[in-house]
Amino acid sequence: MPGFPPRSKTELGEFELIARLCSDLRPGSRTILGPGDDCAILRPIKRPILLTIDSMVEGVHFRVPWFSPEALGRKALTANLSDIAACGGRPLACVVNFAIPRHIDSRFIQRVNAGLRRAAEAAQVDIVGGNVTRADALAITIALIGTSRDAILRRDAARAGDEIFVTGTVGDAAVGLQILEGRLRVRGASRRFLVDRFINPTARLQAGERLASMRPTPAAIDISDGLWQDLGHILERSRVAAELDADAIPRSVAYRAAVGDDLELAMGGGEDYELLFCMRSGWTAARLTRRLGVPVHRIGRIVRGAGAIRIIGRRAGAIPRIGGFDQLRNRGPR
Amino acid sequence: MPGFPPRSKTELGEFELIARLCSDLRPGSRTILGPGDDCAILRPIKRPILLTIDSMVEGVHFRVPWFSPEALGRKALTANLSDIAACGGRPLACVVNFAIPRHIDSRFIQRVNAGLRRAAEAAQVDIVGGNVTRADALAITIALIGTSRDAILRRDAARAGDEIFVTGTVGDAAVGLQILEGRLRVRGASRRFLVDRFINPTARLQAGERLASMRPTPAAIDISDGLWQDLGHILERSRVAAELDADAIPRSVAYRAAVGDDLELAMGGGEDYELLFCMRSGWTAARLTRRLGVPVHRIGRIVRGAGAIRIIGRRAGAIPRIGGFDQLRNRGPR
Repeated sequence: MPGFPPRSKTELGEFELIARLCSDLRPGSRTILGPGDDCAILRPIKRPILLTIDSMVEGVHFRVPWFSPEALGRKALTANLSDIAACGGRPLACVVNFAIPRHIDSRFIQRVNAGLRRAAEAAQVDIVGGNVTRADALAITIALIGTSRDAILRRDAARAGDEIFVTGTVGDAAVGLQILEGRLRVRGASRRFLVDRFINPTARLQAGERLASMRPTPAAIDISDGLWQDLGHILERSRVAAELDADAIPRSVAYRAAVGDDLELAMGGGEDYELLFCMRSGWTAARLTRRLGVPVHRIGRIVRGAGAIRIIGRRAGAIPRIGGFDQLRNRGPR
Repeated sequence: MPGFPPRSKTELGEFELIARLCSDLRPGSRTILGPGDDCAILRPIKRPILLTIDSMVEGVHFRVPWFSPEALGRKALTANLSDIAACGGRPLACVVNFAIPRHIDSRFIQRVNAGLRRAAEAAQVDIVGGNVTRADALAITIALIGTSRDAILRRDAARAGDEIFVTGTVGDAAVGLQILEGRLRVRGASRRFLVDRFINPTARLQAGERLASMRPTPAAIDISDGLWQDLGHILERSRVAAELDADAIPRSVAYRAAVGDDLELAMGGGEDYELLFCMRSGWTAARLTRRLGVPVHRIGRIVRGAGAIRIIGRRAGAIPRIGGFDQLRNRGPR
């Protein structure tokens, strides 16, 4: 923007440089007008529209030294992509709000944007606009629009008799966070795997879309707050209860190497971004694994009731008072 | 969400109460599924879609004691509504991200939501979802979707020969902010008017829609960063320059009572949320005032050039080095 008298580029402040960087994010083919105007303009969407917002806050969800800037941008988008995956949708376009403290410079934000752009390209998402503001802590807040070619997976569709499945393994990201916080000492390949699951999670977009094509439409949710809480959301919205098999909770080799048979982080830890879903009986985990293209495990079943989770299996006693968890403690460093 | 053993409502932490409040925001008729799932689901939008995101951060854009919680919710939405107004659009639905520090309790957020809900109803906007996170400072980030029945007002449509107009008066919100910060002493009705312009701005939605129905389609922007900067954005995007008549900048009686003939805040202060627009010559301010339903003043014209603003008029000398303003200093208390 021209000053009075007009300023040269070298006179622009660091913050203006950052603001310019963010309006340089290039949109794609779904976009009529990208960053740089009051609003972005997207082409009409003739199917139901999915809309979600999520935020990553320094000191709450991450500490700056843990992440490369690129990984930070990538993970901020992944949390939103995972919400679209949990609905069985396809992401289309996003807007990004940066809250930027003085200890973050334009070079850092340039690298965050590079990671964001790469993750958006991989998911075929247009970054269509953004906003930059000052703050005391770095925060990246993304609102993502998507759509669905098919039915939409919802939390309120679980019925008594459904079987409960989960993709991948759970608890890895929570163990990774404990390692980063210095509360757990793990070495070698296990450490790298677990930390990477926290830093570089994957949204299960393809599995979500395939689930949305199945009939009857499964109930689903992504495991962002932890298996226990997220299953709880399904039970609450569907007005049912669940029987969970403690022996069947899928844990990675690295998880076992780090914490042995302790189920606390597998049940209570968040940010795995795996999908938990409920299907009418008749599907085996093996068939679902082939169908969805990711490992699937059966972990229990939906029963009549009002939200309670009954733990069964040999290791039922090994699960502590998970309900007492503080959601925030599970989700980040404070 | 159910705990293990299930927890009663009285055991829920303050943060969970806040999270529940935010999922209680009720959606409207455009919504297939509102808050409480991974994504909100909206009905298809068969016209071009407008998308914008904006954030209000404690200590940057406001201090908590200045606002009633209701006014805070209202203003957070207004900033986004104003972006839609600047495009000549009609707002449809929004998602809200709350970053909540420990000094803010659930009662406060309940009142913020009440203000937000009332402002949304007034603008016929559905609040379809949200997210709540901890943070050290209160921040409300809203992403808003809208659409347009008509052409879309853009920043890049100004042409040499266009006349530049602005709705309402400018600089009032900036003077109001100075009063709130204790940097300016003003009393009585002037004080109330100016502070209210900062606390309770109005988005010019109707004026924006009417502008979008005119041909050729005007260039437009909302004055959120200040007349000087926002005119600069139009010039930069349209690759033109401007002649601005210092004597014609519309200032309220209260503004004059507070700062006399000083134009600094009228030119450089933001958050008025008035519209600045550029029309082919032939329109008088009086006709536009009738057409748009708000007071309109002509403040200059677009000329050939590369972004420069030339000040004309008797008071041209009264304008200080506005280009040297720090954008952040104009926008809030730090």
